[in-house]
Amino acid sequence: MKVDVLSCISEAKSDQFINKTVIVIDVLRATSSIISALKHGSSGVIPVETVQQAKSTQEKDDLLGGERYCKKIPGFDLGNSPTEYSKASIQNKRIIMTTTNGIRAIQKSNKATHIIAGAIINATSCAKVALALDREMVIVCAGTQDQFSLEDGLGAGVIIDELIKYKKGVPILLNDFGTAMHALYLHSQDQLQEAISQCSNGKKLKQL
Amino acid sequence: MKVDVLSCISEAKSDQFINKTVIVIDVLRATSSIISALKHGSSGVIPVETVQQAKSTQEKDDLLGGERYCKKIPGFDLGNSPTEYSKASIQNKRIIMTTTNGIRAIQKSNKATHIIAGAIINATSCAKVALALDREMVIVCAGTQDQFSLEDGLGAGVIIDELIKYKKGVPILLNDFGTAMHALYLHSQDQLQEAISQCSNGKKLKQL
Repeated sequence: MKVDVLSCISEAKSDQFINKTVIVIDVLRATSSIISALKHGSSGVIPVETVQQAKSTQEKDDLLGGERYCKKIPGFDLGNSPTEYSKASIQNKRIIMTTTNGIRAIQKSNKATHIIAGAIINATSCAKVALALDREMVIVCAGTQDQFSLEDGLGAGVIIDELIKYKKGVPILLNDFGTAMHALYLHSQDQLQEAISQCSNGKKLKQL
Repeated sequence: MKVDVLSCISEAKSDQFINKTVIVIDVLRATSSIISALKHGSSGVIPVETVQQAKSTQEKDDLLGGERYCKKIPGFDLGNSPTEYSKASIQNKRIIMTTTNGIRAIQKSNKATHIIAGAIINATSCAKVALALDREMVIVCAGTQDQFSLEDGLGAGVIIDELIKYKKGVPILLNDFGTAMHALYLHSQDQLQEAISQCSNGKKLKQL
């Protein structure tokens, strides 16, 4: 099974997603927050591109979530930290979400047959679901402002590791960038938390 | 000292090279061939973009070298394999070279203060010279048709490893992609030859 990994969303051409399963990864923090929300009982997360679209999509009980420049958007209920998406207040609530990189990556993948929100925290489930869908895959590291982000590469690497673990005899054919991200993960797996706190976004978020 | 690594030449914006030392890496095969030519007594390698420019730049004793689609250009003296650039026939000869990815990456770096041809075979010298020039660096992985190539990432990784080894107290501040390429190299250093023969370009060249 062919699995291509892209280093950031600006590298993506939307036609390359046709008939494929796309896994979008924005570890810090959009996809981690989406996964956290669903785990904690949200009835769904609707990704939208702009603040205006978020407001016009919102229905009665919906919550608004997201960020600009890593900070909560004025008037929104939630920011972009996974910890905010584990509160009781989101139970059975639909969340309309807009963020700078992760949500943009999801939007750009809309020609895919399936889009999965991937992160380090759901790597095993993500890999199992993607294998069950039985299509070629593209793993999109969202990145930050059109630059590669280390934590997304680590997310791709751990998901690849799980794909290899659960592939049941199907060979996983990686592009060169996928091979590199798998090696990055294997080198860093015993110190993931340290690696993430030392990368560019990790440092920025600690400052904030 | 700030060291940014770019995943392929299409990612480069030429203004980001101003006042910097740029290391261009095209392990398979342009920069490996340039380094081999200089080691074996060529009086210089002139990079040019097109076949036409190569022909019009050529003077009496110059040799023409390069490739299109990995193959020697009709009428040229040399192809793009480093082994061709280690022959006695290149001694004291100037070589005009044009290739699809590596030479294009050198051309695109022309706003840099210095451009160094980097590869795995000159990693130590490359790092020492770059440190002595005492400027911020950009390491450009040439890639292949605007895609990342694993062998160039390994080249960046080994050069970073040498920069760290010879930095003499100066901290080496890598961008996230540089950190990832260093990890890739550390993970693969005991099996470099195997890693290169298994990557996309390695397989293609073995077939040819």
